[in-house]
Amino acid sequence: MQQLQGASRFNRRAIKVEQAIQLVVESALPGEKERVPLWQAGGRRLAESLSATTDWPPFARSGMDGYAVRSADTVLASPDSPVTLRVLESVAAGELAAATVEPGCATRIMTGGAVPAGADAVVMLEQTADADLDGLPAVRVKAAASLGQNIAKPGEEFRLGSVIAEPGTRIRPGHAALLGTFGYANVPVFKRPRVAVIATGDELLPVTAPLVPGSIRDSNSAMVAALIEQSGGVPLQMGCMSDDPGAILSVLVQAYEQADLIVTTGGVSVGDFDVMAAVMRSIREGSGGITERFLDYKTAKLLFDKVAMKPGSPTSAALVDGKLLIALSGNPGACFVGFELFVKPALLRLQGASIEASQPRAVTAKLESDFDKGSPHVRFVRTRLFTNDGCLHADPLAFNKSSMLASIPEADGLIRIPAGPDGLAKGSIVEVLLLL
Amino acid sequence: MQQLQGASRFNRRAIKVEQAIQLVVESALPGEKERVPLWQAGGRRLAESLSATTDWPPFARSGMDGYAVRSADTVLASPDSPVTLRVLESVAAGELAAATVEPGCATRIMTGGAVPAGADAVVMLEQTADADLDGLPAVRVKAAASLGQNIAKPGEEFRLGSVIAEPGTRIRPGHAALLGTFGYANVPVFKRPRVAVIATGDELLPVTAPLVPGSIRDSNSAMVAALIEQSGGVPLQMGCMSDDPGAILSVLVQAYEQADLIVTTGGVSVGDFDVMAAVMRSIREGSGGITERFLDYKTAKLLFDKVAMKPGSPTSAALVDGKLLIALSGNPGACFVGFELFVKPALLRLQGASIEASQPRAVTAKLESDFDKGSPHVRFVRTRLFTNDGCLHADPLAFNKSSMLASIPEADGLIRIPAGPDGLAKGSIVEVLLLL
Repeated sequence: MQQLQGASRFNRRAIKVEQAIQLVVESALPGEKERVPLWQAGGRRLAESLSATTDWPPFARSGMDGYAVRSADTVLASPDSPVTLRVLESVAAGELAAATVEPGCATRIMTGGAVPAGADAVVMLEQTADADLDGLPAVRVKAAASLGQNIAKPGEEFRLGSVIAEPGTRIRPGHAALLGTFGYANVPVFKRPRVAVIATGDELLPVTAPLVPGSIRDSNSAMVAALIEQSGGVPLQMGCMSDDPGAILSVLVQAYEQADLIVTTGGVSVGDFDVMAAVMRSIREGSGGITERFLDYKTAKLLFDKVAMKPGSPTSAALVDGKLLIALSGNPGACFVGFELFVKPALLRLQGASIEASQPRAVTAKLESDFDKGSPHVRFVRTRLFTNDGCLHADPLAFNKSSMLASIPEADGLIRIPAGPDGLAKGSIVEVLLLL
Repeated sequence: MQQLQGASRFNRRAIKVEQAIQLVVESALPGEKERVPLWQAGGRRLAESLSATTDWPPFARSGMDGYAVRSADTVLASPDSPVTLRVLESVAAGELAAATVEPGCATRIMTGGAVPAGADAVVMLEQTADADLDGLPAVRVKAAASLGQNIAKPGEEFRLGSVIAEPGTRIRPGHAALLGTFGYANVPVFKRPRVAVIATGDELLPVTAPLVPGSIRDSNSAMVAALIEQSGGVPLQMGCMSDDPGAILSVLVQAYEQADLIVTTGGVSVGDFDVMAAVMRSIREGSGGITERFLDYKTAKLLFDKVAMKPGSPTSAALVDGKLLIALSGNPGACFVGFELFVKPALLRLQGASIEASQPRAVTAKLESDFDKGSPHVRFVRTRLFTNDGCLHADPLAFNKSSMLASIPEADGLIRIPAGPDGLAKGSIVEVLLLL
């Protein structure tokens, strides 16, 4: 087998994690837009700023089932000495009252109904009793009503034209309610980015294959596909490939035709056959090298080929013809970290999130055990999170074994252990990147 | 319009929230199963217990690019006084070595490669230099290797047959990696439950309709659809209906034919035309009443028609022919709370989660402002959550206005304010139900 990497494989210069995230996020531009029915818009990201199409509420609304009254009529009302008011009419929600509520009168009203002219309060049904006045329908009010009681005023929540959500906002159920309220039956959203997933490694077998000695099945493709789905993308499975430059390059070309973003796993390190490292080196050195065909593309720019972090320091990224190529480590733990740090932010940005909103979300928590290992670079350690008495605790999983598969499903976050000679003591306040 | 509700509308007996959740969860039984490609299994819930189909790792694997050595040969190695070993061969990942590593020898190995017989440590490439010995390939090792260094032992993470995930587990990206590793190309999962959504209310217009005075557009349907999606269900939009018993009953019958779970919004309170309250009362009283046609079903049992909580006390649930009918309040805030407390747990249970795992997930946090309003019943108040110095803080939104739409999208959780005369002071530790 042809050795792909020479001595220059050791010349990669590490950049800081924050800088690498920034480079990726700045290279990903919000993608195409489409309209989807409101019914299916949950979880998608808004492509336009949407605003209130009316004041909200649009009219004075009753918040209760009861009686619309003039509060002044009820000031002396109490359970022992109720005030009796003549009932003018009963108005269902959706109907409008025919009559103004005059002094001494009340109108039966339902939750959500428009409060009739003249009334300035609603008394809940439970504080009333049926009555009659000279043979005509009436109501006994057993409690004084305060001005405006149980009435939502027009425009109290939104004024016509006020912005209800900005572009890039992920549509949560509460946004769906607002969009329904303001008549957005079709919602402009960013298209779900298509993400090609290519696993590389001579030792990899497809998931369907029986194991043979020395080989393992491709587990990164399925993991990355699930991560892409979680972040709003559509995974395109390109298969798992041996470290054969010709085959990889032809799949890369296909991927560039079909996808908005390309993610590879494996082959980024200093091994003799690490094909993605060789691709990145060719891009860095601007030479055709093994990537001649791939570099038919107009522009190819290396963003980074080493990041000062553990695990996943050989994680690399390039921008080829405006599309990001992110090469993650093949070690499952490092692949997972690389996805969260670089691919997810890129996906959020492609879906219109601002550069700030695309960054990994961090919380602070108390470290539950000593981490006594210093490191020249920042480390990301998988952790469980739990609360106790209002504090958040980070209980690390598999401190020393980023390659361990077993604990990946249990992780709620990634503890960020800063670079330094000493590690951290139990009880230290740490930053934790939240996983979904 | 026919008045649907009589005096018995006030006879509803409130049960506790926990009891109501329990009744719902116990009534929802895990549904049908199907197999989906691993590629699409992320977020679904496992229908069977899955186990390791091999030891993992299946063979002694190198964790590094470097040289497989006998550690005893390297004890004296240092940068100043490297040890030179003869290189037997170079083995790519996926290949097996031809030769045993004898004393004084080493074999070039890649990350993920099978460690050859005879070797008991791997020295990373960066701690070596090419050399020759009598004209034959050799390597200078510049650091002592400890026994087992950079080698993952067979079975270190999993033993053949050990359980990797239990039924009901939501498949996270890390599970996808495990399923790939163990060859599960098709994954047994519970089918996504179909949930019929029916909005009721004379004041409701479809989202597409222009506003007319006294009416509002249906916002609950879209919100509930997005909530259902988030919880793994498939929403079936049955439309928004006026409070017409005949029409509602015929939609309910349709819903029972198509769906695994039926959710209605609105019409549960004590208003004269509250049609879902009338349906529930008929079920409670066992009389046909307005529900004659609906009650052609074999069994109909009321679970509750009042819950001791705010907002949403009239939230009701029945079990009709083995399917849950959950009637949420029409007030958007109460509808939202009712979904989180009752519908979501039912959906998780339908997807195989255990009764315990179906309960709302709670954390503890510090209350960021006084809540000086006592209440005879537990309250659920929407809140933002943030961390500061390792503590979780709950910053309530819209304390007094459960009907407010504006703050629903901003909520990260629901603070549980216990029943009591005094409310809670700023700084109190509160329980918060987490929203997605």
